[in-house]
Amino acid sequence: MSMQELPQDLLQEIQGIEPRSPEWQARAQSHIDRLTKPQGSLGRLEEVAAHLVAMQRSTPPSCAGKAVYVFAGDHGVTEEGVSAYPREVTVQMVLNFLQGGAAVNALAKTVGADLVIVDVGVAGDLPPAPGLRQAKVRRGTRNFALEPAMTYAETFEAMRVGMRLAEEAAQAGRRVVAIGEMGIGNTTSASAIASALTAADPDEVTGAGTGLAEKGVERKADVIRKALRLHRIRLGDVTSVLACLGGYEIAAMAGMAIGAARRRIAVVIDGFISTAAAAVAFALAPHSRDYMFAGHASQEPGHRVLLQYLGLKPLLSLDMRLGEGSGAVLAFGILEGAVRVYNEMATFASAGVSEKSE
Amino acid sequence: MSMQELPQDLLQEIQGIEPRSPEWQARAQSHIDRLTKPQGSLGRLEEVAAHLVAMQRSTPPSCAGKAVYVFAGDHGVTEEGVSAYPREVTVQMVLNFLQGGAAVNALAKTVGADLVIVDVGVAGDLPPAPGLRQAKVRRGTRNFALEPAMTYAETFEAMRVGMRLAEEAAQAGRRVVAIGEMGIGNTTSASAIASALTAADPDEVTGAGTGLAEKGVERKADVIRKALRLHRIRLGDVTSVLACLGGYEIAAMAGMAIGAARRRIAVVIDGFISTAAAAVAFALAPHSRDYMFAGHASQEPGHRVLLQYLGLKPLLSLDMRLGEGSGAVLAFGILEGAVRVYNEMATFASAGVSEKSE
Repeated sequence: MSMQELPQDLLQEIQGIEPRSPEWQARAQSHIDRLTKPQGSLGRLEEVAAHLVAMQRSTPPSCAGKAVYVFAGDHGVTEEGVSAYPREVTVQMVLNFLQGGAAVNALAKTVGADLVIVDVGVAGDLPPAPGLRQAKVRRGTRNFALEPAMTYAETFEAMRVGMRLAEEAAQAGRRVVAIGEMGIGNTTSASAIASALTAADPDEVTGAGTGLAEKGVERKADVIRKALRLHRIRLGDVTSVLACLGGYEIAAMAGMAIGAARRRIAVVIDGFISTAAAAVAFALAPHSRDYMFAGHASQEPGHRVLLQYLGLKPLLSLDMRLGEGSGAVLAFGILEGAVRVYNEMATFASAGVSEKSE
Repeated sequence: MSMQELPQDLLQEIQGIEPRSPEWQARAQSHIDRLTKPQGSLGRLEEVAAHLVAMQRSTPPSCAGKAVYVFAGDHGVTEEGVSAYPREVTVQMVLNFLQGGAAVNALAKTVGADLVIVDVGVAGDLPPAPGLRQAKVRRGTRNFALEPAMTYAETFEAMRVGMRLAEEAAQAGRRVVAIGEMGIGNTTSASAIASALTAADPDEVTGAGTGLAEKGVERKADVIRKALRLHRIRLGDVTSVLACLGGYEIAAMAGMAIGAARRRIAVVIDGFISTAAAAVAFALAPHSRDYMFAGHASQEPGHRVLLQYLGLKPLLSLDMRLGEGSGAVLAFGILEGAVRVYNEMATFASAGVSEKSE
């Protein structure tokens, strides 16, 4: 197995990521422990607030500029009949996002988050529109059942799209972003990546996607199994896993997760596909994981496997399996609550509340 | 065992509760199935939206006028040394609520919910304040380790406080309310009620409350065990369970759950204590359960037992154990998301998105 060399700019991003600061985390926890509530009684809200402080290395923690980035791309592997919906749905759904009619639009409004749609590999043409970022690398990936989905050059180009958006997010003062996606066929890609990264059997990490029946899921797992065999000599290297099996949207999300971590921006990951991208980011840049929150637990079976690989515990568990960043954006509400608790609650001393008797 | 007769006004409330409408629920689901997403892919958001429509018997579903009611009361059983915090903390925390310094204040702001504090049995004096509803039944309950906590007259008076607030909420156009509480000692009361209603052993439903060490939890379970023995001949009757073991805030929350259901207002229940109140409401008025959402899963061991008794699955699971309505109010964000998805998403037809291929 030959390791693919990483380009200099990507290497610099990776090497520039600092881990969360344990000192800032301890400082945050000691503030949290003075607030008017029994110690630890806000559970994961306390953890989220302390992690944000440890990422941001400053107090008070902030969720300013919350935004969800939805990366769209098509997949050549749809030729194998692995999806319940036709490939045209990717471009149709992007238009739906731009017109405000999708779930992520409604949920972004619920939490007051900005929504940015990024065409990084849609197979159709999209007219310029406000809220649409045109960054197409190619009109869909190649069929990874037959050949590598992307060239290395394309893989890095797509990653750079995400890195550039992270840089712009930092310049715009965003402190937290969510990464979501749209791409017919991309659960097949995510399952293949999950299997390659974690050594899980394709059957364990392959699910119904947008709604395959049982037989369809079996065929999808077979397609993945054969592809893993086809590309096997390259799958010991993370970049090659991404290039052979990935998608432009997955590469871009991985790039954004790395770029955001480099800039101390928290990244809320969404369901199975964005978590596959996060897993790639983690494999390339282990400290990038310190900047991630798992937004929710998807119904896709591979999601649990990838969250375990990442060591992340989802904030929400609402039996969702839509993608689009829909679960991540809902989880913004939890982050917002954590930040407000940290910033707005009184301390025992300031409120004159008696402390615990020993 | 003699059944305590219910007063006429309470009986009328109970008898006036209609179950959720299966017709409206089916109508809601058929709308949801036309929205631009794979069927079922929004999981519990779809369930929440359909349940709201089935409660409200109208479309679109609404979360208008979201408010959290925090009922405060003291408990005579604190004489037995069952709490980690001194009794004075109840009144101190009510003052903290009124000054905006508690967790529920921060979280209510996060979701844009109104906050109403109700003194239904605090042992101290509270100055009039905006946002404080004075409805004190008595300055704390009696010690239920020695005698019934409340008389029947007091029990019904406290329930009527909740019923009246439900009526006012309906008049103010509120479509969803959360019930929370503050009362040092009230996990002891909730554990005793949980044990009496579900026949679970006190050890199974007794936890650390605000932060008892292991030995303290054992003593607390012993106090409960003795009290259940003391009151045993009356504990076959729900009203008597509430009167013997309850608190004014628990009775008021049960009254509000019943009154809200009667007026087709959704009730988001919070942690262990508000769920004990919901369980009492359910035992008295089974259809009231149709209007409940379980906001979150508390760390208190008895909470799981009560949710099972109620047949409710919590929306959030964030290891919280604070009370105050803090978990319920966070769950408002999920309800809001469900409503927006229902009301704002495009259909496959309207957005021109291709449907699933068979």
